Amino acid sequence: MARKNLNIGLVGYGFMGRTHSNAFRQVNRFFDLEYQPVLKAVCARDGEKVKAFAAQWGFDSVETDWRTLVTRPDIDLIDIASPNDTHAEIAIAAAGVGKMVLCEKPLGRNVAEAERMVETVEKAGTANMAWYNYRRVPAVTLAKQLIDEGRLGRIFHYRAKFLQDWTISKDLPQGGAALWRLDVNVAGSGVTGDLLAHCIDTALWLNGPIDQVTAMTETFIKERKHNLTGKVEKVGIDDASAFLARFSNGSLATFEATRYARGHKALYTFEINGEHASILWDLHDLHRLQFFDHRDEGRLRGWRSLHITDGDHPYMKHWWVPGLQIGYEHTFIHQMADFLQGLSEGKPVAPSFREALATDYVTDAVLRSAASGRWEHVKKLV
Amino acid sequence: MARKNLNIGLVGYGFMGRTHSNAFRQVNRFFDLEYQPVLKAVCARDGEKVKAFAAQWGFDSVETDWRTLVTRPDIDLIDIASPNDTHAEIAIAAAGVGKMVLCEKPLGRNVAEAERMVETVEKAGTANMAWYNYRRVPAVTLAKQLIDEGRLGRIFHYRAKFLQDWTISKDLPQGGAALWRLDVNVAGSGVTGDLLAHCIDTALWLNGPIDQVTAMTETFIKERKHNLTGKVEKVGIDDASAFLARFSNGSLATFEATRYARGHKALYTFEINGEHASILWDLHDLHRLQFFDHRDEGRLRGWRSLHITDGDHPYMKHWWVPGLQIGYEHTFIHQMADFLQGLSEGKPVAPSFREALATDYVTDAVLRSAASGRWEHVKKLV
Amino acid sequence: MARKNLNIGLVGYGFMGRTHSNAFRQVNRFFDLEYQPVLKAVCARDGEKVKAFAAQWGFDSVETDWRTLVTRPDIDLIDIASPNDTHAEIAIAAAGVGKMVLCEKPLGRNVAEAERMVETVEKAGTANMAWYNYRRVPAVTLAKQLIDEGRLGRIFHYRAKFLQDWTISKDLPQGGAALWRLDVNVAGSGVTGDLLAHCIDTALWLNGPIDQVTAMTETFIKERKHNLTGKVEKVGIDDASAFLARFSNGSLATFEATRYARGHKALYTFEINGEHASILWDLHDLHRLQFFDHRDEGRLRGWRSLHITDGDHPYMKHWWVPGLQIGYEHTFIHQMADFLQGLSEGKPVAPSFREALATDYVTDAVLRSAASGRWEHVKKLV
Amino acid sequence: MARKNLNIGLVGYGFMGRTHSNAFRQVNRFFDLEYQPVLKAVCARDGEKVKAFAAQWGFDSVETDWRTLVTRPDIDLIDIASPNDTHAEIAIAAAGVGKMVLCEKPLGRNVAEAERMVETVEKAGTANMAWYNYRRVPAVTLAKQLIDEGRLGRIFHYRAKFLQDWTISKDLPQGGAALWRLDVNVAGSGVTGDLLAHCIDTALWLNGPIDQVTAMTETFIKERKHNLTGKVEKVGIDDASAFLARFSNGSLATFEATRYARGHKALYTFEINGEHASILWDLHDLHRLQFFDHRDEGRLRGWRSLHITDGDHPYMKHWWVPGLQIGYEHTFIHQMADFLQGLSEGKPVAPSFREALATDYVTDAVLRSAASGRWEHVKKLV
Repeated sequence: MARKNLNIGLVGYGFMGRTHSNAFRQVNRFFDLEYQPVLKAVCARDGEKVKAFAAQWGFDSVETDWRTLVTRPDIDLIDIASPNDTHAEIAIAAAGVGKMVLCEKPLGRNVAEAERMVETVEKAGTANMAWYNYRRVPAVTLAKQLIDEGRLGRIFHYRAKFLQDWTISKDLPQGGAALWRLDVNVAGSGVTGDLLAHCIDTALWLNGPIDQVTAMTETFIKERKHNLTGKVEKVGIDDASAFLARFSNGSLATFEATRYARGHKALYTFEINGEHASILWDLHDLHRLQFFDHRDEGRLRGWRSLHITDGDHPYMKHWWVPGLQIGYEHTFIHQMADFLQGLSEGKPVAPSFREALATDYVTDAVLRSAASGRWEHVKKLV
Repeated sequence: MARKNLNIGLVGYGFMGRTHSNAFRQVNRFFDLEYQPVLKAVCARDGEKVKAFAAQWGFDSVETDWRTLVTRPDIDLIDIASPNDTHAEIAIAAAGVGKMVLCEKPLGRNVAEAERMVETVEKAGTANMAWYNYRRVPAVTLAKQLIDEGRLGRIFHYRAKFLQDWTISKDLPQGGAALWRLDVNVAGSGVTGDLLAHCIDTALWLNGPIDQVTAMTETFIKERKHNLTGKVEKVGIDDASAFLARFSNGSLATFEATRYARGHKALYTFEINGEHASILWDLHDLHRLQFFDHRDEGRLRGWRSLHITDGDHPYMKHWWVPGLQIGYEHTFIHQMADFLQGLSEGKPVAPSFREALATDYVTDAVLRSAASGRWEHVKKLV
Repeated sequence: MARKNLNIGLVGYGFMGRTHSNAFRQVNRFFDLEYQPVLKAVCARDGEKVKAFAAQWGFDSVETDWRTLVTRPDIDLIDIASPNDTHAEIAIAAAGVGKMVLCEKPLGRNVAEAERMVETVEKAGTANMAWYNYRRVPAVTLAKQLIDEGRLGRIFHYRAKFLQDWTISKDLPQGGAALWRLDVNVAGSGVTGDLLAHCIDTALWLNGPIDQVTAMTETFIKERKHNLTGKVEKVGIDDASAFLARFSNGSLATFEATRYARGHKALYTFEINGEHASILWDLHDLHRLQFFDHRDEGRLRGWRSLHITDGDHPYMKHWWVPGLQIGYEHTFIHQMADFLQGLSEGKPVAPSFREALATDYVTDAVLRSAASGRWEHVKKLV
Repeated sequence: MARKNLNIGLVGYGFMGRTHSNAFRQVNRFFDLEYQPVLKAVCARDGEKVKAFAAQWGFDSVETDWRTLVTRPDIDLIDIASPNDTHAEIAIAAAGVGKMVLCEKPLGRNVAEAERMVETVEKAGTANMAWYNYRRVPAVTLAKQLIDEGRLGRIFHYRAKFLQDWTISKDLPQGGAALWRLDVNVAGSGVTGDLLAHCIDTALWLNGPIDQVTAMTETFIKERKHNLTGKVEKVGIDDASAFLARFSNGSLATFEATRYARGHKALYTFEINGEHASILWDLHDLHRLQFFDHRDEGRLRGWRSLHITDGDHPYMKHWWVPGLQIGYEHTFIHQMADFLQGLSEGKPVAPSFREALATDYVTDAVLRSAASGRWEHVKKLV
């Protein structure tokens, strides 16, 4: 079967530029698909570095201005992997000229940006998707299947946290290439838009809409040297963010994210307690799912540690043999596989920009509540 | 060495009556102490049952009215292990006649009761202690030592939860002997005063005072048959309770308790994240403490699973040999050992009624916040 | 119900003297039984120390010569908790005068001693039992139930190990009170008779007879100061012992014990792999049983971590509430409860001396194979 | 930097054909190297299937006769990923015409084949390497570093096992494409050459030479339908294999492999106990290393669960960010990176064919001992 080319124009060559590029290169090796991504061009401001990146990953060409990239007729799809402050502008321009648009999460720095992005891609009618990659961890996808099958029954509790410890040092500066996540002007917020957004996207997908939240945020280190100005400046991001929530289905939730939890590098965990069964997942051992089923025989009830490496687990028949685990980057490959399959079938692939906007509505309510000290309602997705 | 007798009058023969009786009987077998508890009398309303209990545990006599017990001249210490609605009255009467008083947690059903209890015992100048037994899990005591030694540095985060699943069934009635914890008139509140109180006591001990909280509570099953009336009645307790908190030391916290977390029988866990080190503990494996020290060599940093069975771990030299674990009931034996040691030294042993009152101040703020939807300040312990 | 007294005469006040005494004192608090042990007398050579022990544990009287104890008419049962070199002589004398006899494991220092013990108690027709306490860990008893119910199907593999690390230091002496286990004349052998014996007893109980073995033993530290002579002497015990085995049911096994496994205090683990299901247990977390059932739905197969604290788990309804674990010493209480129940019913309680002899037959074959370098047959129990 | 091409000719397109192809494609994306593999040709007997595989993976051309491939002047390196019975013939032919040769493990079906392979590549002086990929699991490489640094001190114990459960069904046939590992003529042996060989290679690397072994093997299912003949035939392979060993450094070992351990898909674990420290690793969670250091402060000694995802862990700086794990296939990428680096530096990269022969000497002794029932000496590598 001859595959159809899908010409990619990538913006950004950082951490996410690498995970996306790898997904484009690997997807057709492991999945049978009509379409194949072609690494047509990569774009970033630093000409030398972008050339090196293109050589490393096999891009055909480079650009240093995304406006040029976006209008190139040989590009089918713009993939945005640059910092948050560029998402809206690039996405809107790309959709405006009819390109498909993929965008790293969060959609925008704030709801206003995100709403404009949704509006534009929907008006353009172009394929769009946000890279909330954790939906495609096979263990997480299995959790979704179990919930959709009604295995858990009525849901009582949801709890999620995303714990890191990389910004505890006072000597860490803010801003600039590697540290834009600490610069509020670029990032929009701190852990709320970065880590909590992941927790929220998964939660909305698994457990439905959130009605209201009460939140607190904290900036533990108040001032840091800014890499762009060279001066000590006020830190505008939140270092930690936690909230209580009530879901529309009546369940209660606790959410927390921080970069000050010593001992945890990327401990994203979620747990769901239902009437009949419970589920627990942990990014540090992402190939496992913990599952408890009360309908098991009494003496033999216990949390099952599912090793998600079998052919009947989501996505896993495409990889190796039972017992052999995959890693983090595979989640992007899975998402790309689903996107390409959706393209063949003419179906949108979740999470669309609109679905990603729902997450921004929650983070917006979280930040509003942290400021007001009150419960805040979450704006409903139309 | 001839030991001095300490004559015990126990009120209540339920779950806690058993754990306390066991502590009284076992403490001198494993600890060298000047005092030995003598099982002088046990009191409960049901004459037949209290006789059977006395025979089982070796009490010398029985009473069916606690007022009689309290005034018996051969009793040195009144130990209250009866339901929450009896705590204040018995404690106040016992202290009023100069008896030492031990009381199961929580102190009272509410702050008013608890404050009167504190006032009375302090005016009487009699020894008093609340059974917050989890402080004496060796792993938890070790956590306290590590914190007091400054091993963790500045504290950023505290998170605790106590998850159970035994009230999910709609068919479970409320009230009566075994189910008084579901009857708001007897218990005072639901999981807030029952499970959260444990989490809070440990937290105040390990991490200092809490300034303010924002909370939510929920009663998932709104009506249950009442065992005393035989009728379906409104459920007055909270089934689940969660809150965000700010400690005086600047750290942030999440707390949660529920009886609707399928798969968890008594999953009391807490985690503390400090600048240098973190600690995690879990009641389901209470003989282990998880410890992470950032000052370890980089390549070799990892969570250490400490098996708390060595002679240099708190309390453990009194038990068996390294590798052999102890269980739940030992926490009460440890607390009694400390109490008797304090008696010899003329020193109060924590948690005193006053210290237990601090927990009631937090649960009170939690319930107020759940009602008001706002952050509520926690009353300061004088 | 008035309970019948069973007058105990205990020999030995070391580690096992304490676990047995505790069992005698606790058993009637938690189990409803016709008989109750009475701590009539404890015997040991050091008069001062045995008096202190008697005071600590509540024994009515002391003896310093076991020959006197054995013939006291007020003693019903002799319990042997003294070092291995005393087991045979005491047991034979006690049975000879018609006393019931309980004996710490291993039965004798060697097969010759053990066979004489079995012969004597059986000729006397007196109740007898060896303290292989790990059979009464609730998790292990549950394993036995599952196997007996045929849940595992045909058994393919058995593997057990018992790892400790307390004799690694070259400076540790051998012999004398606390270190008799390092003196071959007292102990009979090293880890083979000490730790492996536990592994073998459980294995024979769970998986039936062993036909043949091939073994190796090693003494890592060849000479140690002897506490009794004050001189550096050859070490006669084995520090480590491992063997391969073939069971009569066709399954294969590996066994290993050592006191040189850094990081393990008492890591007794066993795993059984059957056609349909597998079981794994670990003394370091003795209140858990790992269970895998291949008949579970494919996607949801995983090792279940059973928290053995529920009322429907063996022995557990006698203790606390679900989620609250018991410890090491409870295994002795359970064994005593079963023994007393057997007494009421006139039924022998396993493991009898004869069943304990089966373990000595295996350790004998292990030591023979380690010497011969060949597979050795295990003597069959008649 | 323009990279130098290294033209690859791959034989075999099964499981290992895929892992190797992936390594060739991925290595230059993540490692800076002078050489880059070029997928010049893939060879297998089935013309249609090999074409599909070439299209999937991007090979420039296909061959259906390895003799043709081996002599193609445009090929620099022959990579053998076909079944065991082809290894010797292809490797010898390739080396004979001066090609570099990589070969999947085990080297040959038996020592005779393996010795001829070593002799030929060494006479030819061509680069050669066997794919014992588990050496390049970052956690395993870290274990090697710790041992080489003397962290463990004198080694007392080594224990390894590789447990699978995929051949328990009696209905599974033997032989043919997917099941050649069950056909003794193709595989040479069963789990001994397949799974135990992995355990042995790692062990020799970490702990030095093995002197002697005593072993047992078993074939649980004696007859299976043969896919090539269509008839029920005797099963010639070993289903399970276990041995005791003595290493030259004085340490004792147990090894076991089976395909009949229900519940385990690919549970390769090893543990090393040294005087000062111990290490434990498990393929089911390959990104973790368990480490115990007795030199830690007494109260705080515990097994550390090292999450091997930091930049200072072996190979990990080439991947993502701390906390994000890699998977199974990355081990092949690492081995290829090392091989290409060795090529630049003119240095052989372990394990060479000669080093792989050492493993075959051990498996040979294991099979001899299983037949003789005696301890057998392991042939020394010259």
